[in-house]
Amino acid sequence: MRDHNWFKLALTFKGSVIPAIYKRVIFCGSFGFFISILDYLGVPVSFTNLDGVVSSIVLGLLLVFRTNTAYERFWEGRKIWGTLVNNIRNLARLIWVAIDEKSLEDRKAKENNMKLLVAFAVATKLHLRSEGVNSELESLMPPARYFKLKTMNNPPLEIAFWIGDYFQSQYQRNCLGLYQLNALNDVLNSMVDMLGSSERILKTPIPLAYSIHLKQLLLIYCLLLPFQFVDSLNWATGAIVALISFTLFGIEEIGEEIENPFGHDPNDLPLDAICATMRRNIEDLITLSPSASSFKDDNQIANIN
Amino acid sequence: MRDHNWFKLALTFKGSVIPAIYKRVIFCGSFGFFISILDYLGVPVSFTNLDGVVSSIVLGLLLVFRTNTAYERFWEGRKIWGTLVNNIRNLARLIWVAIDEKSLEDRKAKENNMKLLVAFAVATKLHLRSEGVNSELESLMPPARYFKLKTMNNPPLEIAFWIGDYFQSQYQRNCLGLYQLNALNDVLNSMVDMLGSSERILKTPIPLAYSIHLKQLLLIYCLLLPFQFVDSLNWATGAIVALISFTLFGIEEIGEEIENPFGHDPNDLPLDAICATMRRNIEDLITLSPSASSFKDDNQIANIN
Amino acid sequence: MRDHNWFKLALTFKGSVIPAIYKRVIFCGSFGFFISILDYLGVPVSFTNLDGVVSSIVLGLLLVFRTNTAYERFWEGRKIWGTLVNNIRNLARLIWVAIDEKSLEDRKAKENNMKLLVAFAVATKLHLRSEGVNSELESLMPPARYFKLKTMNNPPLEIAFWIGDYFQSQYQRNCLGLYQLNALNDVLNSMVDMLGSSERILKTPIPLAYSIHLKQLLLIYCLLLPFQFVDSLNWATGAIVALISFTLFGIEEIGEEIENPFGHDPNDLPLDAICATMRRNIEDLITLSPSASSFKDDNQIANIN
Amino acid sequence: MRDHNWFKLALTFKGSVIPAIYKRVIFCGSFGFFISILDYLGVPVSFTNLDGVVSSIVLGLLLVFRTNTAYERFWEGRKIWGTLVNNIRNLARLIWVAIDEKSLEDRKAKENNMKLLVAFAVATKLHLRSEGVNSELESLMPPARYFKLKTMNNPPLEIAFWIGDYFQSQYQRNCLGLYQLNALNDVLNSMVDMLGSSERILKTPIPLAYSIHLKQLLLIYCLLLPFQFVDSLNWATGAIVALISFTLFGIEEIGEEIENPFGHDPNDLPLDAICATMRRNIEDLITLSPSASSFKDDNQIANIN
Amino acid sequence: MRDHNWFKLALTFKGSVIPAIYKRVIFCGSFGFFISILDYLGVPVSFTNLDGVVSSIVLGLLLVFRTNTAYERFWEGRKIWGTLVNNIRNLARLIWVAIDEKSLEDRKAKENNMKLLVAFAVATKLHLRSEGVNSELESLMPPARYFKLKTMNNPPLEIAFWIGDYFQSQYQRNCLGLYQLNALNDVLNSMVDMLGSSERILKTPIPLAYSIHLKQLLLIYCLLLPFQFVDSLNWATGAIVALISFTLFGIEEIGEEIENPFGHDPNDLPLDAICATMRRNIEDLITLSPSASSFKDDNQIANIN
Repeated sequence: MRDHNWFKLALTFKGSVIPAIYKRVIFCGSFGFFISILDYLGVPVSFTNLDGVVSSIVLGLLLVFRTNTAYERFWEGRKIWGTLVNNIRNLARLIWVAIDEKSLEDRKAKENNMKLLVAFAVATKLHLRSEGVNSELESLMPPARYFKLKTMNNPPLEIAFWIGDYFQSQYQRNCLGLYQLNALNDVLNSMVDMLGSSERILKTPIPLAYSIHLKQLLLIYCLLLPFQFVDSLNWATGAIVALISFTLFGIEEIGEEIENPFGHDPNDLPLDAICATMRRNIEDLITLSPSASSFKDDNQIANIN
Repeated sequence: MRDHNWFKLALTFKGSVIPAIYKRVIFCGSFGFFISILDYLGVPVSFTNLDGVVSSIVLGLLLVFRTNTAYERFWEGRKIWGTLVNNIRNLARLIWVAIDEKSLEDRKAKENNMKLLVAFAVATKLHLRSEGVNSELESLMPPARYFKLKTMNNPPLEIAFWIGDYFQSQYQRNCLGLYQLNALNDVLNSMVDMLGSSERILKTPIPLAYSIHLKQLLLIYCLLLPFQFVDSLNWATGAIVALISFTLFGIEEIGEEIENPFGHDPNDLPLDAICATMRRNIEDLITLSPSASSFKDDNQIANIN
Repeated sequence: MRDHNWFKLALTFKGSVIPAIYKRVIFCGSFGFFISILDYLGVPVSFTNLDGVVSSIVLGLLLVFRTNTAYERFWEGRKIWGTLVNNIRNLARLIWVAIDEKSLEDRKAKENNMKLLVAFAVATKLHLRSEGVNSELESLMPPARYFKLKTMNNPPLEIAFWIGDYFQSQYQRNCLGLYQLNALNDVLNSMVDMLGSSERILKTPIPLAYSIHLKQLLLIYCLLLPFQFVDSLNWATGAIVALISFTLFGIEEIGEEIENPFGHDPNDLPLDAICATMRRNIEDLITLSPSASSFKDDNQIANIN
Repeated sequence: MRDHNWFKLALTFKGSVIPAIYKRVIFCGSFGFFISILDYLGVPVSFTNLDGVVSSIVLGLLLVFRTNTAYERFWEGRKIWGTLVNNIRNLARLIWVAIDEKSLEDRKAKENNMKLLVAFAVATKLHLRSEGVNSELESLMPPARYFKLKTMNNPPLEIAFWIGDYFQSQYQRNCLGLYQLNALNDVLNSMVDMLGSSERILKTPIPLAYSIHLKQLLLIYCLLLPFQFVDSLNWATGAIVALISFTLFGIEEIGEEIENPFGHDPNDLPLDAICATMRRNIEDLITLSPSASSFKDDNQIANIN
Repeated sequence: MRDHNWFKLALTFKGSVIPAIYKRVIFCGSFGFFISILDYLGVPVSFTNLDGVVSSIVLGLLLVFRTNTAYERFWEGRKIWGTLVNNIRNLARLIWVAIDEKSLEDRKAKENNMKLLVAFAVATKLHLRSEGVNSELESLMPPARYFKLKTMNNPPLEIAFWIGDYFQSQYQRNCLGLYQLNALNDVLNSMVDMLGSSERILKTPIPLAYSIHLKQLLLIYCLLLPFQFVDSLNWATGAIVALISFTLFGIEEIGEEIENPFGHDPNDLPLDAICATMRRNIEDLITLSPSASSFKDDNQIANIN
């Protein structure tokens, strides 16, 4: 069965790089075919000693370096969102356990702010995709805030401000110790760090000079191929050149696709699913009642543990 | 003796990649044999200048990059569980030493919560393997909690909540200073981070485009081999092609096997053994009596040190 | 459209390495042409077995290692500035939320110090570019400080001192708790760390021995090329040698360009844009009023959340 | 003189991999010699087109990846022990400076616990080498504790417990502030982390599948060599095959040797020397008298500084 | 101009590896010349099929891995000293701002201890270079301490003790809050960590087995070269062999030179310049007067900000 999957995966179209590169491949193949026509017509187009011009070792190393770099960005993006999940889980647990409830309204405020944590993640997602504040956020905050948010340059920063403001006000109401205020703020800082790190990956692609030079080498390499092969391959030149350019353009394209992992492509990070998981974790947590900060007495606690 | 082991290991079957790839290898070998039959029958199948189509340098670099990436995930998984071990050891020691005991019941509560630490690790293990809450966890917590746990989406998060709730309640009973509450919560946060990091490795394989393109290149490479070799190797073509495809599929398969290190395969992390070690460390610790938080007087302490 | 962009990018001139290397490429091409003249005149200049002298594998590996290292510096530089953005966002939020306002002047002082955070980033940028304190900084601080700053060796350090001094004085006026003072100082320390890390990248290029040896190998490699090729390529020698030297010098040049990412080149980090973003974030924040540290009463806060 | 050393080092036997691999090399050489006999006897054993079966690029990349990975483990092990040294130095300084002395016995207790820090490192060393608690530890702690230690599964954890217990008891005697208790416990946690990290490196070798597959490729490669070379090298086949297998087995062996860096081999970490350095640093420190926590008056301190 | 610099740098002698390797290169060249003499005399020394014995791919990968590893150590060393600079800047600022001055003597003590920070860096530098305590340190501390320092095994540790002792005594005089004492101690701990990390790089070279095996392969490779080339190159053999050995020994030598980056070589870190920068930063800081901890009143502070 494993082997069955192996072949099935090897022949998958959706998610592969083929849709992105087939035009370039056809272009190279056609150029190869054109050269074989010239060869057939007796034009002297065969140069068999050109294979050192762009050394396949150098090109291979550059391509793999390109893919490697892009993968590291992809994986760093994933780590950032993993850290965001961890932060939100920890912050939600700390809010639920550590902030004292003096009235029923306090519990409501806690729940609202735990929802704001999810809203932070959703707003970050939308911000990274250059999508405006939309209905996904509407159910996670009061309408007044929702409309305020629509006017901001950087909505997640605004939400972080609200959460930090809530912590500070709970501290001033003596529902939260000073030391715990700091602990909560540390996790909130880490959430803002994750926003900034995502923006960093989004806004800083691989240096232009590198990107251009690699494309130039690829182009030179592929366009020189027919001249080398036409003597021995004749009419098959076009097909073989297309195959070779497919392997090389494919590797470069992987780099381009995973370099920015925050979009909607099949190869991007499943940000929607991650946000949904956070939301479910928070809803689960709300079903549990903390023994410490609510109205149970100490003896009861000692019995449970 | 060392050399003896070397050869023994080289010929090991269990734990090697052979069981996973032999079908693909036989397929390629058969295809090679089929081509030699065609060659024997005079069909023109020999093309000796195809060896540049998939450059062995490019393929080699991609394969090694694949293995490298998978190994990094394996090793990151190991580090995560190492950190979990460290966290649980530190948290157990801090609970044992730092939480004041006002009655004998308090010591019992401490022991119960130290068991919950192990339960967190076990629940994480089961969660990562998509196995439900089972009897492994039953002995580590009261029945009421055990049944509650069976209903949750993410059992380890629930256990973390119980532990955090215990800390907060001890703080409110004045058995734990505010600073130390925070220190304990920091380690607990780190445990939840490790859960999230494990989930990250589990749920985010290498990008699909990469995985597909590598399989395509491997397939093209192996299927072109017989055409190159049939002229010189004749009937040996099948055997040699099988051997070559064995070396290449083997490297790719290693990547697939160690990419997700949380399963039950021989190449996966020994999570059962790690959990057992944690349990033993905690049981060892319980046999020692802390001089500080229990009822000994200060002079006695000064004498010991 | 994607393919259209691909070709357009491949043929881009600005931002590519061509302006930097074309003279070296022409030099090598001319040398190649000179050798073909000698060959034409019957001078025995053809040595076909020289291609192992500088192994193209070794040269390729060294070039890619060079690029890799330079890219890591570029990316580390970007991370440093990303962390600086995060620090300034977090510090601004904490100042805005956590420092108590006893009078309207206090709010003004908060705003001034939030501007100093941006001034720190701008001063770091100017310091890294060896540009003096200029008008960009003038609008971000009182004139007295601006003129004082013009006399310092390391302006950002001075600004950090002012910010730290402000925190300490707010603590002594009881507008800031001791713990929070420390939390603020921790973030400020991190900002000074980022200054130091940027200086480290700026002032420590790749070791001289490495840089020299790579240039020597490149030169030997390119100057030996004509002797190998003149026999088979004749008058095309110059062109082909130019093409090969273009691919190799180009890779080395990328390394040189991105090694110091703090300048004004198209391939450097967009420090001006990053500073502008920070400024906009701070200005956005000032439009929001914190519920906690200003004069609103607690009930009102509970209603909002 | 440098060149003299260079050649001397190149010809060193002790510490090199020769002792570990010479049998395998002789085996391969003998096999090569056996093939040349068969060739001499007219058996058709020459196949010159086998050199692509195990591509030397793929094998080279795998070997270097193997060495690279092993070196990273070696270096990580070194970092762990470096951190342990740092932790012990810092913890000793903090104990010496920060814990108040109310009587002469208190100073004695401080010295005893600073010795326990060294004992932790020594016990970790012995634990990693699977050596029991021995006389090295006897001089570093009271006899009662020494005998208790002999009965434990994980002696370093026990020592960490004693140290933590000492901190807690000093806090309860008001010789140590609560906040400093936390700072000391943080460093102690880091020491336990280093124990866990060392165990992680020790107990998790490179995945079995990788290790086996590499050995299989090496074996296939070396055993196919004689068939390729016998035609051109005749009786020298054995010698050359031995030389080639020496280079390759040597690289693999380096990986095996440095993968677990905690043993007694010449290539392992100098743990004994590191432990001795720690001990000397602690003894040096004890010769200095802290002005703060002992009985000197404040004026005197102000004069010194 | 850039190209001019390029060629100038390529031909630089000082700082290049030539002085270190020319003897080995001459040795190999002479050996090559000796073989051509034997060839001329008719001794059968030509073996053209030896080029696979030490595969240039494997050798190239090992050499690049060697350089890579050494560079990582160089760069880690630079990071360590960068962190040391950051720590000293932060600690100086915190001392200057946070420690209360009750008398003029207190300010003097602050200045003395800020000088001790520089002394720590200088002492670390001398310690790493195995140079004794010298006059560079004399101006940075009172004579009594200077002479005491001359008797210690590890002078920087002693200085760290003095600084920590100063912090503790200021805390006991109520010039420093407990929380800030800890913040200062954290940075001091980091300085001691940097000392330990530098020692780690200094005392743990690349594993001996690796170093030896690489030298052996290089030697085998270079000594086999003349036998391969003598047939085609005749009297040029010596020159070409010298050129090849120059490229390879050069790469290895770079690794050796930058592996320990703390010495006086042109390729080592500019530790003297770094120490001078620290000193200048501290002297700059002393020219500024902190508003918070000195005798200015609060209103004045509010006006400034």
